[in-house]
Amino acid sequence: MTAVRAGRDVGSLVDRARGGDPRAVARLISLVEDASDGLREVAAALAPHTGRAYVIGLTGSPGVGKSTTTSTLVKACRAQGKRVGVLAVDPSSPFSGGALLGDRVRMQDHATDSGVFIRSMATRGHLGGVAWATPQALRVLDGAGCDVVLLETVGVGQAEVEVATLADTTVVLLAPGMGDGIQAAKAGILEVADVFVVNKADRDGADATVRDLRGMIALGERDRRRDADAPPRWQPPVVKTVAMRSEGVDDLVEALERHHVWMTEHGELDRRRHERACREVEAIALAALRARLGDLGGRGSLEALGSKVAAGATDPYAAADLLLEQVTDAG
Amino acid sequence: MTAVRAGRDVGSLVDRARGGDPRAVARLISLVEDASDGLREVAAALAPHTGRAYVIGLTGSPGVGKSTTTSTLVKACRAQGKRVGVLAVDPSSPFSGGALLGDRVRMQDHATDSGVFIRSMATRGHLGGVAWATPQALRVLDGAGCDVVLLETVGVGQAEVEVATLADTTVVLLAPGMGDGIQAAKAGILEVADVFVVNKADRDGADATVRDLRGMIALGERDRRRDADAPPRWQPPVVKTVAMRSEGVDDLVEALERHHVWMTEHGELDRRRHERACREVEAIALAALRARLGDLGGRGSLEALGSKVAAGATDPYAAADLLLEQVTDAG
Repeated sequence: MTAVRAGRDVGSLVDRARGGDPRAVARLISLVEDASDGLREVAAALAPHTGRAYVIGLTGSPGVGKSTTTSTLVKACRAQGKRVGVLAVDPSSPFSGGALLGDRVRMQDHATDSGVFIRSMATRGHLGGVAWATPQALRVLDGAGCDVVLLETVGVGQAEVEVATLADTTVVLLAPGMGDGIQAAKAGILEVADVFVVNKADRDGADATVRDLRGMIALGERDRRRDADAPPRWQPPVVKTVAMRSEGVDDLVEALERHHVWMTEHGELDRRRHERACREVEAIALAALRARLGDLGGRGSLEALGSKVAAGATDPYAAADLLLEQVTDAG
Repeated sequence: MTAVRAGRDVGSLVDRARGGDPRAVARLISLVEDASDGLREVAAALAPHTGRAYVIGLTGSPGVGKSTTTSTLVKACRAQGKRVGVLAVDPSSPFSGGALLGDRVRMQDHATDSGVFIRSMATRGHLGGVAWATPQALRVLDGAGCDVVLLETVGVGQAEVEVATLADTTVVLLAPGMGDGIQAAKAGILEVADVFVVNKADRDGADATVRDLRGMIALGERDRRRDADAPPRWQPPVVKTVAMRSEGVDDLVEALERHHVWMTEHGELDRRRHERACREVEAIALAALRARLGDLGGRGSLEALGSKVAAGATDPYAAADLLLEQVTDAG
């Protein structure tokens, strides 16, 4: 791919993306993913058009049916005439080419629909987590005029927490009979889930899983009510689906809409988006500062200071002070 | 605990710690763990005495026998007349009070031995990972004159990788019949393990686990040899132990000594310690810069810039530039 250098080119790419050209969207995402020269221009050109997409994160263990659920949500959004973007940060997702033929064929339903843009992203060493360029790719889809963006990520360890920081609404999927489901739930997903989905609800144990989840939610709420000053909080609903047969999808869509309305009414949507923007700005600034620390040369370089610390000639705090002096003087 | 303010107090604490006073060691670790006012003084006073301890990291899933193995290694080191420190960053460790009575009683063997210092550390939200103050606590034990420091951490997700960045030698423990063992191995422990231990080797499947591991190691080595320029690399041995009955501990001790010698001869020990010191200095500098970003007020504050980004009035890169200008000017 040739680099985009002139602002005019980026502006025209953004115009074409907003007009629904999937190749323009793909190229913009590539530009931000590669952190190329055009990255800053793309960010600047997109900014005035951002802040409109409703970002729904979907996470859960491999095999719970995240991609099938994503696919049914795409259909539901299209039926309402909404433009939809899908970002799959999931090595096992059919969008990333990692799944069974059947799944891949199913996703082809959307391949010829110009109102749907689908993109998979590599995780680059982040064990199953969210790719570093995900926030920028979300901005591309938002700026390109998507009404809804579905962010699918495989839930292992901290991925649920990461996806929750990027999404307006976080959906945690479980399936009956997967022992780790509720275990994982205890480990922290209760904190981040806005909507629980028990998929494959035609299987044995679905009702038990729903009951366990509701018990956990009630318990958490009871503990919290002891604090009289606690602000009103959203109670995550538990929705049963069989995504493969599109059963329960209406309930899921309704739960998502209720959460969207609740967030808007309680100022939570603005609060989350503000927090997300702050973290994004901070991460970019820290990455730049880290690069500056690494670029220092001579006796004050990180390498040279590391040698002094390893030899016991100085301590890490004094060494860090020397680094900081140089970075702030060099400004 | 009252804060330590005068340099004289810190100096005397370090002297007492070096003399083998366990309360002085405990107090120094508390000072660095609490990031108190005395932290910098402690770091400065310790620096001339650091760089001597041999740090052995032990990691593995819950239930593989990390604490029992740690305990047998403590005994082996004591039999050689070495001073030993143990840092347990593991919520399930008996050192952290989280295990069965039997384990706790076993660790009491060392409770009255002044040549052994044992400390557990909280992980503070890091899911099973390494506590943020661990590098400083290691420096305390090193500076206090420990010949060997055993760093025990429960292996979930990225913990193995984290412990490997702090240890001179990383031991990964597995047990037969734990299906996740080899799975986890595939996910990246091969990259970080210097020594594999198959503990509970009297159980069914131990030989199969050893065979699987050796096959994996051989496969990795074969792939690597295709690169003619690859430097010589340590081949991680696989040691069978029954730590509960102290079986195989001599083999483990010998494997650790061989790795120590190999690293010294190949310059790898210096390389690892230099890398560790660089990362430590960098982390302290970045934490300070992050605090400065958060402290900025007014229209250039992170909060205010986050609002502008969320509203589409600017993009995150331009906002980050404004933050950086302030931090570097304020230096």
